[in-house]
Amino acid sequence: MKTSSERQKAVRDYLTKSSVDAIIIPSGDNHFGEYYQEYFACRKWVSGFTGSAGTLVITSKNAALWTDSRYFVQAENELAESGVVLMKMKVEGTPSIPEWLKAEVGRTGVIAIDGQIVSKSEFDSLSKALCPIVLKSVNDPFQDIWENRPLLQFNKVISLDIRLAGETITSKLERIKLAMPPHENLVYIISSCDDIAWLFNLRGSDIPFNPLFASYAVVTNEKSYLLVNEGVVDNSLQKELMSHGVEIMNYSNTGQFLSSFDHSFSIIAPADKISISLYNQAISGGARFITDEARGGITGALKAIKNSVEQNGFREAMKRDAVAWVKFIMFMEGELEKESGNLTEHLLAEKIALLRAESPDYRGESFHPIVAFGANAALPHYSPSGDKPVTIRKEGFLLVDTGAQYIYGTTDTTRTFSLGELTEEQKRDFTLVLKGMINLSRAIFPKGTRGSSLDFLARGPVCSAGKLYSHGTGHGIGHYLCVHEGPQSIRMEENPVELKPGMVTSNEPAVYVPGSYGIRTENVILCKEYEANLYGTFYNFETLTLVPVDTRAVIVSLLGNEEVEWLNNYHKVVFTTISPLLKKNEAEWLKARTASIG
Amino acid sequence: MKTSSERQKAVRDYLTKSSVDAIIIPSGDNHFGEYYQEYFACRKWVSGFTGSAGTLVITSKNAALWTDSRYFVQAENELAESGVVLMKMKVEGTPSIPEWLKAEVGRTGVIAIDGQIVSKSEFDSLSKALCPIVLKSVNDPFQDIWENRPLLQFNKVISLDIRLAGETITSKLERIKLAMPPHENLVYIISSCDDIAWLFNLRGSDIPFNPLFASYAVVTNEKSYLLVNEGVVDNSLQKELMSHGVEIMNYSNTGQFLSSFDHSFSIIAPADKISISLYNQAISGGARFITDEARGGITGALKAIKNSVEQNGFREAMKRDAVAWVKFIMFMEGELEKESGNLTEHLLAEKIALLRAESPDYRGESFHPIVAFGANAALPHYSPSGDKPVTIRKEGFLLVDTGAQYIYGTTDTTRTFSLGELTEEQKRDFTLVLKGMINLSRAIFPKGTRGSSLDFLARGPVCSAGKLYSHGTGHGIGHYLCVHEGPQSIRMEENPVELKPGMVTSNEPAVYVPGSYGIRTENVILCKEYEANLYGTFYNFETLTLVPVDTRAVIVSLLGNEEVEWLNNYHKVVFTTISPLLKKNEAEWLKARTASIG
Repeated sequence: MKTSSERQKAVRDYLTKSSVDAIIIPSGDNHFGEYYQEYFACRKWVSGFTGSAGTLVITSKNAALWTDSRYFVQAENELAESGVVLMKMKVEGTPSIPEWLKAEVGRTGVIAIDGQIVSKSEFDSLSKALCPIVLKSVNDPFQDIWENRPLLQFNKVISLDIRLAGETITSKLERIKLAMPPHENLVYIISSCDDIAWLFNLRGSDIPFNPLFASYAVVTNEKSYLLVNEGVVDNSLQKELMSHGVEIMNYSNTGQFLSSFDHSFSIIAPADKISISLYNQAISGGARFITDEARGGITGALKAIKNSVEQNGFREAMKRDAVAWVKFIMFMEGELEKESGNLTEHLLAEKIALLRAESPDYRGESFHPIVAFGANAALPHYSPSGDKPVTIRKEGFLLVDTGAQYIYGTTDTTRTFSLGELTEEQKRDFTLVLKGMINLSRAIFPKGTRGSSLDFLARGPVCSAGKLYSHGTGHGIGHYLCVHEGPQSIRMEENPVELKPGMVTSNEPAVYVPGSYGIRTENVILCKEYEANLYGTFYNFETLTLVPVDTRAVIVSLLGNEEVEWLNNYHKVVFTTISPLLKKNEAEWLKARTASIG
Repeated sequence: MKTSSERQKAVRDYLTKSSVDAIIIPSGDNHFGEYYQEYFACRKWVSGFTGSAGTLVITSKNAALWTDSRYFVQAENELAESGVVLMKMKVEGTPSIPEWLKAEVGRTGVIAIDGQIVSKSEFDSLSKALCPIVLKSVNDPFQDIWENRPLLQFNKVISLDIRLAGETITSKLERIKLAMPPHENLVYIISSCDDIAWLFNLRGSDIPFNPLFASYAVVTNEKSYLLVNEGVVDNSLQKELMSHGVEIMNYSNTGQFLSSFDHSFSIIAPADKISISLYNQAISGGARFITDEARGGITGALKAIKNSVEQNGFREAMKRDAVAWVKFIMFMEGELEKESGNLTEHLLAEKIALLRAESPDYRGESFHPIVAFGANAALPHYSPSGDKPVTIRKEGFLLVDTGAQYIYGTTDTTRTFSLGELTEEQKRDFTLVLKGMINLSRAIFPKGTRGSSLDFLARGPVCSAGKLYSHGTGHGIGHYLCVHEGPQSIRMEENPVELKPGMVTSNEPAVYVPGSYGIRTENVILCKEYEANLYGTFYNFETLTLVPVDTRAVIVSLLGNEEVEWLNNYHKVVFTTISPLLKKNEAEWLKARTASIG
């Protein structure tokens, strides 16, 4: 196996051959989702840094990698032998990539970037920041450099039954056309695989955790096109799609197909979800480009509003998931009682997946599971490894954050369990996190409210103790799609997207005490219409998650009456809904664990 | 007195004479503050519409006035005989001014606007929206049209003692220069009279409620200039200003002075706080223009952070004001007991001003007082009139929202009094408004938090009852300056300005039940540093207002323990701080009114 230095050398040979001064190697693929195939892991392959976020820049002499604070320690270790300088983002004194490049290559430099994996908006803003240095979109340089590169996977595409999707392809296409700007001869390009999966009621398995397949879609007023690899859509599925006016085309011909639209057409796409190379091909035939200004794109905005069938699917998924959680917690506690010393984070992470797999409708995990004992939970993105087993003992907290894909919905739940004696500070923190989660769950808010207006309901109780979690409170969640889905969010940062009935979002306040413990309590909530009256229209949330909260750490006096009432009522719903699906001893256990407090 | 039609005729003669197709007549003056002198009330003079917000547009044949929902009824009445069409803003089907003008004057039209009273940013965005119609900045057309026009007032300017201002002019000038962009030969133009009053530790009396004087300021790296009308600054004050390097120049020469800066200078100003005519003059000598991008402008951003002397001044002002409020409430209740039928809203509005005037440091009201009985309080901007006296009876609620200027600070307080039997709904609404006010008062939040993140703390309780107030929760407040001051705010709407220690803001949740009652409870809060620890820096609020809350309508069970505790503690502070300043019977009354609840 070659070293990072040898791989950098190969990249530098490419620079010389191509007469460019440097190359920027970002993370990601041509569909701009959260996960991508190993084929696209060029940055990792060259640098050796395995974190999910990072950008590598290589000049003829130097190399540097920019990443954020989550990965500082990991990156330092992984880059140690590589000669790649670690650039700590948001740390004072760290230059930006353009600043560093200006010092490295001078004003007349030319920088290459793979135009396939950088969006038009990123490319434009990077170009602007680099000026007068020229940024040049190039074809994937790793085609020649990377020996034994993993192959791209193109797995079979499956159809999602209309009884699970709740809306026909034809109806979705009609709604997209209605949402498009009033121009003639529009050509709408969709690069986001989850938007495409939603639009055509299809699912795939090309990447981990997200049930997606590599594809593009093109929607015109007359017709729509699904561009996939040959053979992934079988004949009967192809027929079904054709009945909705969908023509199957070859994925590898996407650019060529788009270049066939001449000046009588207008191409439209979200600028942050179309690669600069596809954009260049799309306008090469003479078509003009219109930016899809809808937050998350037209399709993403429609997809975010779950229809009633999808909502019921979520409810069903939550039931199945809760059954697995009950069995999981009982298993964990039983093993802990044995004090065998065999209970590890990794074992528990595997156990919950096995328990979920008992449902025939389970389709895999929705993200890499987090099972974090003690101080490990203070790292928000910790994940257990099979190589270094961490034994769980009867002390402190255990944080478990896992989610699943079912054919009718996606789950994402965090519970923090009290395994032994706790300090007053731990109990207070646990209670404040719970208080924040309940505050947000109970919110009633006017139409037009953005997530940023509600974030502090969840965050405030933790801040009142002079503590803080640095992540958002809520992310959108897809319907048997990506567990992280836009465009809405519930965070401190401004996001102009209004919360609307049908949106599904997580609710996950937390506290992390470095080196000591971490607490997070996460439910999934559905935005609904609460009331319309002379003051306007009001929305509220329905909590979808049905997993009992471990109340052993709760300091009841820190909760208000209405908060205690909410929790007791929640547990009543959990018991009533889940107990019929359990064995007798499990139902008894659940009865005890959902008993009222206060 | 001429009719509106006759005045419109005079305007149309001007259009003909000037070869323009229409004129846009906005509200406001050349300093872009909340209040302006009667001299600038051209829109009112022509149309007869007296509301504070509205834009009149006159073409050769038609006239229309755009205003918002607060003024629909009033505008309909006042415009009835004028022939001016009322354009209801934000109502479906209402054209925008550019849309209407495009239909009226066609593509080749030319539209005039008084360049003195429209900001550069407004002018630019209006020009863009009108294109291809040409928008032309003209000199005030009403100089010739308006017979017997009120004269501009230029009253004596007074100096604010350094013991009240807390920072020298020299120091403030230094801080402005430090905040300016790193260019040579910068010329910073300030048009906002409150920024100028703050910068030079001066106050005036040219307009109602705001202790300001008509002026411009120009700050260069070498020197600064205060442009005021001749004679308003006396010799000793002039000497004092000169000792800080401030040169006095003539207000009417501002444009001419600015045009003297040639291409070796860069002019800088906030684009929304410099008139297009002054901008045109400023660049006429060849200087280039840089937009002051600081929210509220460089000076406004500095002014918003009150120094410790100003903070203490606020505390002193709140004490004086609380004494007047105690006397006022006792008077009101005494008169009510007499049941003489003589107690009117108007009389109470005058009474509180008289009581405040007992302090030698009182300098007038900080805004038009609101004393609103019963259904009148459902109009958020109601103000009592002497012409139509409204008698106050022992029933329902009385809402009093008034504020004062003291030489050491500005106040703004709203209390809602229970005058008789209340319904359960009224009591619940009162309690929820109070709960919201307390929630915000108790907030502890991380550095970097914007007001929009905290708004829902105050708004949420009212929303939980399916009700809503449509205004913001908090506005900035000046130090013996404008009661409405930027740039921070606490509202639903995004405002990127972060809350910072030293900022003074109102906290005024409310509920309005149309035709029935209105409730608002308003304190003034000061942002302070609460704690700095490993999680970061946290801020909280100190409540400055010291006026007892009428607790008779409180439903204690709707408040949490910590909220009750906050209120009881607040009342303890009110009693301890204010009672030494009261007569014995007043102190006894206050003791009863600040008794603990719950």
